[in-house]
Amino acid sequence: MARKKLRVALVGQGFMGRAHSNAYRQVGHFFDVPYEMETAVLCGRDAAALAKMAATWGWQETSTDWRAVVERPDIDVVDVAVPNVLHAELAIAAAKAGKIVLCEKPLAVSSEESARMRSAVAGLPNMVWFNYRRVPAIALAKRMIEENRVGRVFHYRAQYLQEWGNDPTRPPNWKTSRAGAGSGAVGDLMTHSLDLALWLNGPMREVMAMQHTFAQGRDIDDATLVMVRFANGSIGSLEATRYAVGCRNRNAFEIHGGRGMLGFDLEDLTRLTWFDATEPRDIQAARKLLVGAVGHPYAGNFWKLGHVTGYEHTFIAALGDFLGALSRGERFEPGFDQGHRVQLAVEAIQTSAARGGWVTVEQGE
Amino acid sequence: MARKKLRVALVGQGFMGRAHSNAYRQVGHFFDVPYEMETAVLCGRDAAALAKMAATWGWQETSTDWRAVVERPDIDVVDVAVPNVLHAELAIAAAKAGKIVLCEKPLAVSSEESARMRSAVAGLPNMVWFNYRRVPAIALAKRMIEENRVGRVFHYRAQYLQEWGNDPTRPPNWKTSRAGAGSGAVGDLMTHSLDLALWLNGPMREVMAMQHTFAQGRDIDDATLVMVRFANGSIGSLEATRYAVGCRNRNAFEIHGGRGMLGFDLEDLTRLTWFDATEPRDIQAARKLLVGAVGHPYAGNFWKLGHVTGYEHTFIAALGDFLGALSRGERFEPGFDQGHRVQLAVEAIQTSAARGGWVTVEQGE
Amino acid sequence: MARKKLRVALVGQGFMGRAHSNAYRQVGHFFDVPYEMETAVLCGRDAAALAKMAATWGWQETSTDWRAVVERPDIDVVDVAVPNVLHAELAIAAAKAGKIVLCEKPLAVSSEESARMRSAVAGLPNMVWFNYRRVPAIALAKRMIEENRVGRVFHYRAQYLQEWGNDPTRPPNWKTSRAGAGSGAVGDLMTHSLDLALWLNGPMREVMAMQHTFAQGRDIDDATLVMVRFANGSIGSLEATRYAVGCRNRNAFEIHGGRGMLGFDLEDLTRLTWFDATEPRDIQAARKLLVGAVGHPYAGNFWKLGHVTGYEHTFIAALGDFLGALSRGERFEPGFDQGHRVQLAVEAIQTSAARGGWVTVEQGE
Amino acid sequence: MARKKLRVALVGQGFMGRAHSNAYRQVGHFFDVPYEMETAVLCGRDAAALAKMAATWGWQETSTDWRAVVERPDIDVVDVAVPNVLHAELAIAAAKAGKIVLCEKPLAVSSEESARMRSAVAGLPNMVWFNYRRVPAIALAKRMIEENRVGRVFHYRAQYLQEWGNDPTRPPNWKTSRAGAGSGAVGDLMTHSLDLALWLNGPMREVMAMQHTFAQGRDIDDATLVMVRFANGSIGSLEATRYAVGCRNRNAFEIHGGRGMLGFDLEDLTRLTWFDATEPRDIQAARKLLVGAVGHPYAGNFWKLGHVTGYEHTFIAALGDFLGALSRGERFEPGFDQGHRVQLAVEAIQTSAARGGWVTVEQGE
Repeated sequence: MARKKLRVALVGQGFMGRAHSNAYRQVGHFFDVPYEMETAVLCGRDAAALAKMAATWGWQETSTDWRAVVERPDIDVVDVAVPNVLHAELAIAAAKAGKIVLCEKPLAVSSEESARMRSAVAGLPNMVWFNYRRVPAIALAKRMIEENRVGRVFHYRAQYLQEWGNDPTRPPNWKTSRAGAGSGAVGDLMTHSLDLALWLNGPMREVMAMQHTFAQGRDIDDATLVMVRFANGSIGSLEATRYAVGCRNRNAFEIHGGRGMLGFDLEDLTRLTWFDATEPRDIQAARKLLVGAVGHPYAGNFWKLGHVTGYEHTFIAALGDFLGALSRGERFEPGFDQGHRVQLAVEAIQTSAARGGWVTVEQGE
Repeated sequence: MARKKLRVALVGQGFMGRAHSNAYRQVGHFFDVPYEMETAVLCGRDAAALAKMAATWGWQETSTDWRAVVERPDIDVVDVAVPNVLHAELAIAAAKAGKIVLCEKPLAVSSEESARMRSAVAGLPNMVWFNYRRVPAIALAKRMIEENRVGRVFHYRAQYLQEWGNDPTRPPNWKTSRAGAGSGAVGDLMTHSLDLALWLNGPMREVMAMQHTFAQGRDIDDATLVMVRFANGSIGSLEATRYAVGCRNRNAFEIHGGRGMLGFDLEDLTRLTWFDATEPRDIQAARKLLVGAVGHPYAGNFWKLGHVTGYEHTFIAALGDFLGALSRGERFEPGFDQGHRVQLAVEAIQTSAARGGWVTVEQGE
Repeated sequence: MARKKLRVALVGQGFMGRAHSNAYRQVGHFFDVPYEMETAVLCGRDAAALAKMAATWGWQETSTDWRAVVERPDIDVVDVAVPNVLHAELAIAAAKAGKIVLCEKPLAVSSEESARMRSAVAGLPNMVWFNYRRVPAIALAKRMIEENRVGRVFHYRAQYLQEWGNDPTRPPNWKTSRAGAGSGAVGDLMTHSLDLALWLNGPMREVMAMQHTFAQGRDIDDATLVMVRFANGSIGSLEATRYAVGCRNRNAFEIHGGRGMLGFDLEDLTRLTWFDATEPRDIQAARKLLVGAVGHPYAGNFWKLGHVTGYEHTFIAALGDFLGALSRGERFEPGFDQGHRVQLAVEAIQTSAARGGWVTVEQGE
Repeated sequence: MARKKLRVALVGQGFMGRAHSNAYRQVGHFFDVPYEMETAVLCGRDAAALAKMAATWGWQETSTDWRAVVERPDIDVVDVAVPNVLHAELAIAAAKAGKIVLCEKPLAVSSEESARMRSAVAGLPNMVWFNYRRVPAIALAKRMIEENRVGRVFHYRAQYLQEWGNDPTRPPNWKTSRAGAGSGAVGDLMTHSLDLALWLNGPMREVMAMQHTFAQGRDIDDATLVMVRFANGSIGSLEATRYAVGCRNRNAFEIHGGRGMLGFDLEDLTRLTWFDATEPRDIQAARKLLVGAVGHPYAGNFWKLGHVTGYEHTFIAALGDFLGALSRGERFEPGFDQGHRVQLAVEAIQTSAARGGWVTVEQGE
């Protein structure tokens, strides 16, 4: 099988740049896709750090001028992994140059931006790095919902709880200001929960929310709490915060339906909690499925049952699935469409938090 | 030590009547109080069932006329364990007769009622059976908060999740109608969470809430969700539902503060989760304290560490503490004052759910 | 239903005396048996302490002369809760007086003793307080084994791990000397595991064991480790120790069979772990059954699902079952027969530990 | 920094070959070592499968003649990942050719073999792939033991429990015959436990063991149970089996000492259980350290706290540490010396199982 080369330009040299670099390096080892990813150009602002990172991860070139790189004809894929406020400009420029566009989440800092971005990539393969859809346990949850193992949903509950807001030794960075991130916990953390909620439980009709800032002088939300009415008749609550002391990275959800319950927590990402309410009552109990059994999502890609995978594999699997869809000419999800929908939900949340009361969530079409 | 006899009349022959009967039988075995509880009269509507229950639990007499019993001079204590809508009438009658009045939770079905009840018992020893304050793990949480082990509180999160709403084989009862219970999940379940929240985290300034009914034709809330702004600057979320499939009896809370985190779940009632954020980062982790160690609340009353106690002991301990306070002439908490405050919170929640938006919680004084 | 009075003489005023007293007080509240237990005489050595305990628990009389009491015609039941080395003398005296005889575990300190005790009670109702058979989760395990949910057993693994041996502040007591207890961890802790193993997994063919004493100058085993070949073809390991720092009271077992796995830990005594290996592989996982559901053992006796019971209930249930068997004229298990078999296993273990190598376990008949 | 090229020949095309290939690919991304690993030649028996695997993982050449490859002057490193019975021949040939020799575990199928292998690599850099020493949680356990957080050790308990022996659909392979593997559970699974026990708890003085075969006609042990007396005065038990239904891959240990307790389970490999017995009793409890915090082993290599790593990272870290030691001219552990010691323990175990009773463990020097 001859594999087509796809030459990538990655803009971003932080933690996410590293996670994406790893995905480019690893995807071919675990996914049988007809592409060879060439790590062509690494773009950023700090030339010395770029050189070091390029040497470590095998990027062929570095550049501090992403505009020039994005227009180079030898580049097939532009991957945007910079602070949120810069996503729109970069992604739209890449789209104008006709590139395949991959963008970190949240897609944008406003729905006006995300709408423009979505329009810009029309007809081009595109992806938002909502990597948690590719956690094997979450992919299994999706499948089990489709198999009607949950039944009519009553409750959807999501948390994304971190604690670093409480660390006084931590210096401010782009994530703690409106100028860099556009928003706080809602954009950084809750967008993950929103993407999963929309994927697993369908559209939201309306939300009622509050936002709170604990740190003096900060202009973004340290915590966001939301109540939701979903189109399927279920109700939900979402919580995202950087002040949940004791929680390293609790990206969790629970879904209660008439036929069963599903639960997940990223701190135990190899397991999916399942309660089967259709069994006889005396043997009903929550079980924690250790993901990776034959037949589970991605079981054939990585190692074997009991030999656990971790955080980085969600990026590899996202990329693997994207390339698979690309090779089949299929539309990939989550793309900018889904990223825009998440942004519409964020905006309804922010509106509700500002004025109190229920706010309708626009559906993006 | 000569022990004073206290003759009890218990009104109620259901599950709670049984739990209270057990408390009267057991309190003297585990608490060194200068009273001997005499289980004098058991009142209810069903004479045959009363006779059977009285034989089992050693009630000296039975009666289907609680009004007559409440006024008998040989009765010292009246214990109200009937459907919520009847609490006020009974408790007020008992108070008028000058009795010690104990009442099941929720104290009332409206704050107008609870205000009248509170006035009626002024000067009389009184108690609301918010038994969960006496779970040893929760009493330990209270102590640890007072020891400043949590620090400035950021988040308070409570859930009371049951699943029986989803059981189609279950017949309606007084708990599923406004006529019997006054409300649904909010009165039955969330009042427990509210009492604990007020006790552990202090007064609530305002709430924003939603209520939802899943079952067709039911006139009460099957689920209630609340956001809270507490007077201490923390924010909170409360959830109570009878449709959380997979949850037998998850009465849980988590408190995140600048110095640590506490967590509890009634399904694992012998443990208190604690995360100490003042330790060096590399050894920080949640631990589950097995309650009952020397120095823990109620460790001297029941068995020994690792020999666990359960649900019924919360009633025994509530009664034991009440009698201890009585013997010392101290005011007991939670009394009708606290029960009234919970009712004020319930009413703010119901108001918010009805009209949307934030509603101030009245403080009851 | 007129209930026959059974007048009890309890010999023993320690922790176990208290647990038994509670059982006599509570059994009639939770078990519908045609007997009324009269707590007639409490015997012990310390008259002042006896008086206090009798007042607390409602014993009608106290005595420091158990020999006289045991022969009194107004006594129906003699309950032996004294140090192990005294069991034989008391139980045999009670049997000679024709009493119903209940005895704490371990039944004896040698198989010679236990054989004599077994002979002495022939024809008399008798019980050994191996209370853990009545943990609802363990009773459920027994039922599930009988339902063939485990299949052919491969492995049986039991631990009884405590830590107090490591506490230098703890004074020696009768449990830490051969003169008082006959043995150390093997008699005190492992006899529980042995009784459960024989009940749940059947007879043992042979054992290979080691015993170890960590404390200087102590003449009993602080820890005992055993390998077992069971008659059913499975193999097992047993461990009992007082030096398992970190373990408050881990009385645990796991059984692995061709069709499934069961697991239990007394520190989480309301749950039974179950893994169903007959399900499709992709949904197989251990589940923790919260015991108390309709249909579970003792579900009808105590409270309801999610309202947990604890340590003391195992004594109440043992007594309740004993009285039920008595009323039906049935032989109760575990009786002195079973207590003797446990003692035979202990002796094989001690022999193996002394000389190394495999030792056949005598079957007692 | 110019990095020296190390050209690798890997012999083995199975699951382990894949895990090693990944390590060669990834080590430079996470470890700052002055070597560049060149995946030069992949050797095996099945040319077609070799070609496919080489294409996936980027091996430059393939060969079905490992003898020729091992002697090629352009090869620096020979990595042995073939069935156990072939380890000695390959490793000794590689050593004779003066190569750096890496070998999968168990090092050999007899101590006679492992002794010869150890002699053969004298003076050459060498490693045995006991990868679990590099699980961050286990490396942290080692450090905490060295910091005296466990104190005088009383008990060491290890399990390696798998269940696939019970799967009747599974065809026999080299691991299920003496001809391919030399032994069963003891060599495949318990050698991991032995290496960790020797590393964490020091030399073993003597062992008493049993071995059992459940499958008819199989000539190796399906399960091995061992009791141990360690040189440090502690006692231990080890268990390895392929018939622990319900256990996917439970490679677990617990260490109880006078100052604390440590516990680990590979199915939850991102956490280390720790109980600190030096704290006040009322706040003592087991905690599960989520490994990856600043200061933890390998925290600087992979992602960040809460972004978990998995199975494959243990191979990457083993290789990273080996290369680090190589660059500093240090002796690496575990090398063939350690592999030989494990083999001596295996042999004592097998001897004891064959004849019953205690057998002295030779120390290998």
